Amino acid sequence: MTALDRLSAGAIAAAVNAGETSALTVAEETIARAAAYDRVQPQVWISRASPDDLRAAARAVDARVAAGESLPLAGVPFAVKDNIDVAGFETTAACPAFAYQPDASANVVERLLAAGALCVGKTNLDQFATGLNGTRSPYGIPRNAYNLGYVSGGSSSGSAVAVAAGLVGFALGTDTAGSGRVPAAFNHLIGFKPSKGRWSTSGLVPACRSIDCITVFTGETGDAALVDGVIAGFDAGDPFSKPLADRPVQARRIGVPRRDQRVWFGDGEAEFLYDRAVERLAATAEIVEIDIAPLLEAAQLLYGGPWVAERTAAVADLLASNPDAIDATVRAVIEPGLGIGAVALWNGIYRMAALKREADLMWEGVDLLAFPTTGTTYRVREMLAAPVALNSNLGFYTNFVNLLDMAAIAVPAGVRANGTGFGITLIGPADTDRALIGIAENYLGAADLPPPPSLDMEGRVQTVKLAVVGAHLKDMPLHWQLTSRDAVFVEATETAPAYRLYAMADSVPPKPALIHSGDNGAAIKVEVYELDVAAFGSFVVDVPAPLAIGTVTLADGTSVKGFVAEPRAIVGAEDITALGSWRAFVARG
Amino acid sequence: MTALDRLSAGAIAAAVNAGETSALTVAEETIARAAAYDRVQPQVWISRASPDDLRAAARAVDARVAAGESLPLAGVPFAVKDNIDVAGFETTAACPAFAYQPDASANVVERLLAAGALCVGKTNLDQFATGLNGTRSPYGIPRNAYNLGYVSGGSSSGSAVAVAAGLVGFALGTDTAGSGRVPAAFNHLIGFKPSKGRWSTSGLVPACRSIDCITVFTGETGDAALVDGVIAGFDAGDPFSKPLADRPVQARRIGVPRRDQRVWFGDGEAEFLYDRAVERLAATAEIVEIDIAPLLEAAQLLYGGPWVAERTAAVADLLASNPDAIDATVRAVIEPGLGIGAVALWNGIYRMAALKREADLMWEGVDLLAFPTTGTTYRVREMLAAPVALNSNLGFYTNFVNLLDMAAIAVPAGVRANGTGFGITLIGPADTDRALIGIAENYLGAADLPPPPSLDMEGRVQTVKLAVVGAHLKDMPLHWQLTSRDAVFVEATETAPAYRLYAMADSVPPKPALIHSGDNGAAIKVEVYELDVAAFGSFVVDVPAPLAIGTVTLADGTSVKGFVAEPRAIVGAEDITALGSWRAFVARG
Repeated sequence: MTALDRLSAGAIAAAVNAGETSALTVAEETIARAAAYDRVQPQVWISRASPDDLRAAARAVDARVAAGESLPLAGVPFAVKDNIDVAGFETTAACPAFAYQPDASANVVERLLAAGALCVGKTNLDQFATGLNGTRSPYGIPRNAYNLGYVSGGSSSGSAVAVAAGLVGFALGTDTAGSGRVPAAFNHLIGFKPSKGRWSTSGLVPACRSIDCITVFTGETGDAALVDGVIAGFDAGDPFSKPLADRPVQARRIGVPRRDQRVWFGDGEAEFLYDRAVERLAATAEIVEIDIAPLLEAAQLLYGGPWVAERTAAVADLLASNPDAIDATVRAVIEPGLGIGAVALWNGIYRMAALKREADLMWEGVDLLAFPTTGTTYRVREMLAAPVALNSNLGFYTNFVNLLDMAAIAVPAGVRANGTGFGITLIGPADTDRALIGIAENYLGAADLPPPPSLDMEGRVQTVKLAVVGAHLKDMPLHWQLTSRDAVFVEATETAPAYRLYAMADSVPPKPALIHSGDNGAAIKVEVYELDVAAFGSFVVDVPAPLAIGTVTLADGTSVKGFVAEPRAIVGAEDITALGSWRAFVARG
Repeated sequence: MTALDRLSAGAIAAAVNAGETSALTVAEETIARAAAYDRVQPQVWISRASPDDLRAAARAVDARVAAGESLPLAGVPFAVKDNIDVAGFETTAACPAFAYQPDASANVVERLLAAGALCVGKTNLDQFATGLNGTRSPYGIPRNAYNLGYVSGGSSSGSAVAVAAGLVGFALGTDTAGSGRVPAAFNHLIGFKPSKGRWSTSGLVPACRSIDCITVFTGETGDAALVDGVIAGFDAGDPFSKPLADRPVQARRIGVPRRDQRVWFGDGEAEFLYDRAVERLAATAEIVEIDIAPLLEAAQLLYGGPWVAERTAAVADLLASNPDAIDATVRAVIEPGLGIGAVALWNGIYRMAALKREADLMWEGVDLLAFPTTGTTYRVREMLAAPVALNSNLGFYTNFVNLLDMAAIAVPAGVRANGTGFGITLIGPADTDRALIGIAENYLGAADLPPPPSLDMEGRVQTVKLAVVGAHLKDMPLHWQLTSRDAVFVEATETAPAYRLYAMADSVPPKPALIHSGDNGAAIKVEVYELDVAAFGSFVVDVPAPLAIGTVTLADGTSVKGFVAEPRAIVGAEDITALGSWRAFVARG
């Protein structure tokens, strides 16, 4: 089967209100899409409305529209992360032993239903919303919609995939440490995290109750604004709800992490994409490098300090009565909170207040921040092998935001070679929500990003790009090592102007050595091939010393795997840089 | 020597600015007053500026005025509670082992000095500001300025007494649970407790840092406004400081505790004075009885819940290194915080947020609250005998205010028979500070209270008022039992119209029995005498059954001690109520 196109909430509502289609028609399409995607990842959902219930809800919306109502979300199918109550569905928080049948829907869900939206079901999540990767659930691991080998991001894993896969027009997530932003980045989505207190958290299973936010994933910024318009507002029943406020902000000065503080966990592709995003922002704003140390210190208190005990408080009963019912990794994160004293928490509260003050002063120098949403991404198998450390890496740029009372919107900022998304997050002080959505829209308009790739419906084979410079070039003696591995030719190009090329002494067959020489280098002609990881691995096995496979920077600034050489390679070698290519050297004879 | 009149900060500053007096003249007077009052209670102070230093500071102010500056507090002497830093003075927090020499003055002190005020010294307090009574200090017990047998109130004991005794124009206190209000009530003062974050707390030794406020004691509401004008404002160095905001409020609907929720700890005099204050407020506002249960529950978290650990956090180092250096009662309050877990604190934070929400909704029904500042007061010896329980009683109406982010101003509301003050506190939502000061001024103008009595310079003898109705009346057979005890005649009056009078059978000499009969009663003529407690005690010893000394309500609604009778007194007795007095019965013959 083919991949599904995404749904636009605004377009659906407009069509239903205009009578161009009906909610029932949308519901039928939704039922068909869900069934189709069940063959790829049924684990996106923990529970789903029956087709008949969804049809009944759609008919009720059609009746309201027929009666003259104009409903901002008429007939728009949506999904709800399964730590938010929806009447008629169990709330599990991805822990069967914790599950309960709620009496009523969460305030946010009530508002969506009143606006004509259709609840399709409850989505999978990292248990108790503790995690940023999507692997911590007994209901299965929702995987990245664009590459099933990679994590979807979490904790709102199912909600992000449901939107990316075109199953719903939008989906509610939640965000304590980044759970509404990280999965957006990985799945080429908008992830809008409102200011604390803007959207009611009544009916939400707490993770860290003092900083939990309900969020939304959409395909378009306009849909985030549409949903915010329906949901935002004071709820007297939620002690953390605030009177609605909108603070304007203009994107004149945009803060980015000081270059020496940026952390990429070895991921050059992310660094490249981030630099490109900042470059685009720089076209219309002043880019200001800021010291992110206070932000990182605040983040440290979340998982390395007394805020851990807030997660413990949320599941204290279950932890006491049935600890084995909790996911082992989640439990390992939460259980240490039992040993933290109130005195330590008070001291943490004071330190956080001081850091909040530093962050508030930061806004005198910048209007908003544009940070990478994450510094890297991981394969599911990697995450399962190091579930705490790699998860922490994913929160490096997101953990501080709620602690310091900021609003944020995660937006796409590029497609990785593996098909998954790279994203940036625009972050502003509290109550800049609507302004941020507008700025995000402007950015996306200017960024002119490639569209998301096709959905991965069968398990994408991971491939690697390899630059060759000598005996592996087309028609050269070792080219067969590529063709025998089904390598696909990508392009003939040059390296960045930073290399020197040597003809090695005594090499059979004759082979060059490509040496990175910085300012003293030149552009050298290369050919780039793409091959799957297994084939690439066997290719690397066959590379003889002093050659090696490392990273080669190309003329367009991207990096690919490629031939490099040990220093000993140039002993007795001839510098042929001036020729510009191995092919020219061979031709010289 | 005679008692000192109070100083007016506004009048002093105006006179110094106008050249009618000099700061140096004021300083000399201040030095003389302090020396005089040292003979009464030197323990008001922990440290004091030397006369020469005070003169030098005054000369500097005079020079600034001479140079043309107009200083809002020119030459006004003030005192600072010794948990607030003043450069050049040790900060002890009333704990010698904790004492340190601060590098700089607290932000609030800097502002006062810049405005021309003269710092006279540092005042005594309940150690670490933990207490509402003034007895918890190794530097001695500051006593009520109007009756040395009674507590001054705390924890800002010395600051309140210094203002009441006319030693300074105003004094800084602090207030976490009521420490800036309770001593104001007991010493006939204004106690202004600003909204959290309005006055910087930089340079304050924390008690419960998240809710600590610096406050001021003054003799007049205008002086509170004057000091607020100098001090209020944002301090970037204090993470709890907030941008200055003033929210208007009009005293149209005033909330008072529901009658069945009022607690007086057996103190009928306080109840009477409170009723009178409410009556006066009712002349210009609607009085609304409110349910104070949520306020009391919030208060309960302060000393009965995880906020105790906040006090522990403030002195954790000393508690670990030198616990015996801490006052035994204070330590007994603070030490249990070590055993409270962060999970319990998080749950407390959530509960407090819910209670805050309830309190916020309360403001939809009332504009402000007018509560008793305290339900009663205690003698120093009583307090020392039950230091935790009686202290708690003093905080019944004050503890919740800071926890729920309210502004408050304590104002006098009457003089007790023992000379100490009874007060009410006007309480409004955050940022209503200036409005509350104005409302307090209006109330005091309308209340037309008697002036505070003379200061107690030698130890006031406690006296008791006694109503007699029969054989003890002037010229009657047992009147000598009063004259022999130096009883002083106060007045001839009547009881409330709620009594019946009986001539007892077989009583020698003939004596009546006064029986409270509610609606079925009449006003009976009595004489009121005043005698000291020792004489009163020996008088009660001599009263024979079935008579007894109880409480008699007079025609003006006040209560005094007086003759009552056991039920058996009316067996065979003649009801002589219709005669209206024992004297008429005797005259009838």
